[in-house]
Amino acid sequence: MEVMNFLNEVTSRYPEAISFGPGRPYEGLFEVERIGDYLDAYTRHLSEELGRTPDEIRTMLFQYGRTNGQIHDLVARVLRNDEGIEANPDALVVTVGCQEGMFITLRALFTGPSDVLLVSSPCYVGVTGAARLLDVETVHVPEGEDGADLELLRRTVAELRAAGKRPRAFYLVPDFSNPTGACLPLPARRRLLDLAEEEDLLLLEDNPYGFFTRTGTGLPTLKALDSRRRVIYLGSFAKTCFPGARVGYVVADQRVRAADGSHGLLADELSKIKGMVTVNTPAISQAVIGGMLLSHDFRLREANKPAADFYRNNLTVLLDCLDRLLPPERREAAGIHWNSPEGGFFLTLTLPVPADNALLEESASEHGVIWTPMSYFHPDRDGGGRHQMRLSLSCLTPEQVAEGARRLVDLLERSCL
Amino acid sequence: MEVMNFLNEVTSRYPEAISFGPGRPYEGLFEVERIGDYLDAYTRHLSEELGRTPDEIRTMLFQYGRTNGQIHDLVARVLRNDEGIEANPDALVVTVGCQEGMFITLRALFTGPSDVLLVSSPCYVGVTGAARLLDVETVHVPEGEDGADLELLRRTVAELRAAGKRPRAFYLVPDFSNPTGACLPLPARRRLLDLAEEEDLLLLEDNPYGFFTRTGTGLPTLKALDSRRRVIYLGSFAKTCFPGARVGYVVADQRVRAADGSHGLLADELSKIKGMVTVNTPAISQAVIGGMLLSHDFRLREANKPAADFYRNNLTVLLDCLDRLLPPERREAAGIHWNSPEGGFFLTLTLPVPADNALLEESASEHGVIWTPMSYFHPDRDGGGRHQMRLSLSCLTPEQVAEGARRLVDLLERSCL
Repeated sequence: MEVMNFLNEVTSRYPEAISFGPGRPYEGLFEVERIGDYLDAYTRHLSEELGRTPDEIRTMLFQYGRTNGQIHDLVARVLRNDEGIEANPDALVVTVGCQEGMFITLRALFTGPSDVLLVSSPCYVGVTGAARLLDVETVHVPEGEDGADLELLRRTVAELRAAGKRPRAFYLVPDFSNPTGACLPLPARRRLLDLAEEEDLLLLEDNPYGFFTRTGTGLPTLKALDSRRRVIYLGSFAKTCFPGARVGYVVADQRVRAADGSHGLLADELSKIKGMVTVNTPAISQAVIGGMLLSHDFRLREANKPAADFYRNNLTVLLDCLDRLLPPERREAAGIHWNSPEGGFFLTLTLPVPADNALLEESASEHGVIWTPMSYFHPDRDGGGRHQMRLSLSCLTPEQVAEGARRLVDLLERSCL
Repeated sequence: MEVMNFLNEVTSRYPEAISFGPGRPYEGLFEVERIGDYLDAYTRHLSEELGRTPDEIRTMLFQYGRTNGQIHDLVARVLRNDEGIEANPDALVVTVGCQEGMFITLRALFTGPSDVLLVSSPCYVGVTGAARLLDVETVHVPEGEDGADLELLRRTVAELRAAGKRPRAFYLVPDFSNPTGACLPLPARRRLLDLAEEEDLLLLEDNPYGFFTRTGTGLPTLKALDSRRRVIYLGSFAKTCFPGARVGYVVADQRVRAADGSHGLLADELSKIKGMVTVNTPAISQAVIGGMLLSHDFRLREANKPAADFYRNNLTVLLDCLDRLLPPERREAAGIHWNSPEGGFFLTLTLPVPADNALLEESASEHGVIWTPMSYFHPDRDGGGRHQMRLSLSCLTPEQVAEGARRLVDLLERSCL
């Protein structure tokens, strides 16, 4: 991914700089010693609760496995507890991270040259990258302060139809989006579901950050509100368990007709594709994540309280520091502003000058602070986000966040105040 | 995969039948208890040999990782010891099983509508399935008793060129191929490498079974003989370690020009694609396989002696039983014959009558023995292999092999003798 390579390159040249770049989860809460405990918890579950014999357990850990995964029942229980999503385990596909989930979903849904993927823009590069790999045409729908812009979405759909295209699905991160931090309000979620029904669109809901609220307890996911099977839910354990397992999942409960004319679940179509991409998600990874789900009594939201506190505090520190160092009248006069995300890992800062590679170079070399130009998250780098930076605070300590904010304001003082 | 679903379906209806169907490795040599040991061996290696701190080790196990993998150095050492392949670790991409390796390799190599993938036919369904998913045109080159037919390959290349196509690569399993068990002789390997150079073809060498010889120690791989970087080596630990880790790799040391005009290794192009498919291979899986490589002192061939003995014995038992029950004059008169693979998991049996689903149904229900119709391994099921069955003996005990052979001969007695 261009943006990550670029960030890594800058970071390697300025190792002392504080980096608001990477969106990785905080590592301080990971414990190597627990891996064995999680494996044990999973094998104990197989033997004691499911009555599997030692030979069967050996087969489950070492052999080729079910294409759709072997912890789908456990994942369904977590979804019920944490999100109020009633997922049929047969509609779940356990994937090699959410990335594979997006990839196989796009491959299943986009079958003709007139099919178009709509994305709320700026957009997470994983989905636009997967679309590019599959030659899927992507059309971006610029979002507003509160995330997806539904009127613009409806207009774009109409324009595409008029041009002979088939808008097939709309991808978005409703909760604390990567890269902007925007969150779609509840009334807009309901309107979006209606719009999807009216316009015959599928919604690809990607939700890695929903647990990490700064205020309140978060909003219901689109999938939890979805009574008409309009939502394909893309789930990830990268932020709620850990990224190194590479375990994600897709809830694909849509009824579809297969190539052979039979009717089944979209999950079964995803399974056929997954079989040709990775065969099945590694059993070892599934066992570790399965063990974590069991150890936390299928309540990851609760298990993630320390992580949520950590991210909440970082976001609060960043907002407080910026506000203190650049009081409203001062920043407004200079044309600087930022959003106040209700949660998640990211914040958008807007400047009167271009937040481009040159400014980043100056920022890293002169001020010791790194961030991501928002333009990298605009499809085709079309000029969108040119005056914005993405600030990520997920893998810094609160002290680093505070010091990083000071350095950032130094940069702003020099370049636009 | 159609063939596997079909076999699973038949097997579920006749659970008492002896199945020569699945090509899975034998499970008796797997030990659940060892997973923890392997993880420990890997983390010890990181700390004691590479001097990594506990925090760095935590990052390596839990965090997002290097797209191309983190055990590439260890894999390169195994390749040197076991295959005499001198692989630059930077040319190695650690993948989610060999399947992802095939998938990303095809995506990287096949970029235009006139590009054609040649496959030695009958062919492993994983590669033709991946090609189908990527809309890559596949042309099959029927193989002879000794594997790939080089004259036919050369003629096919010429015909495709004349038709305005661009034959880009030739996929084969030179050692004890799935599904036939054929092995390409050494002189043919050298001629194939020359042909690839003359015709500007890449060779996709898939080698899951090379260690499992019935006679002798096996032949050098194409990659070991490859002095002109014509061979992309598709490696798998599914049979030499275990499938549940889903760890494979690609050796892609070809120099290529990237989209931005710079020159680099094909492995770097694969990496860009892999980043959009699975981000990186799960660190937990890599750690377990890395620990196995370390525990076996980077000599998997030696570590696989018990497994090789097991498969060798099964193949010998099957060949002996068939020969005893159907002596040469008897089978020749009836038009029945089989090959005598020098190793691997598979044997091809040819009949005077169609080895089709109807015969399989009769075989399972009346005689209690299951096998795979060879026609499933012919692209587009074009009638090839219609009179052949694939017999797999990798996950049966020797007693089951002997009893299965008796039942098979019962079926033959009834249907063609």
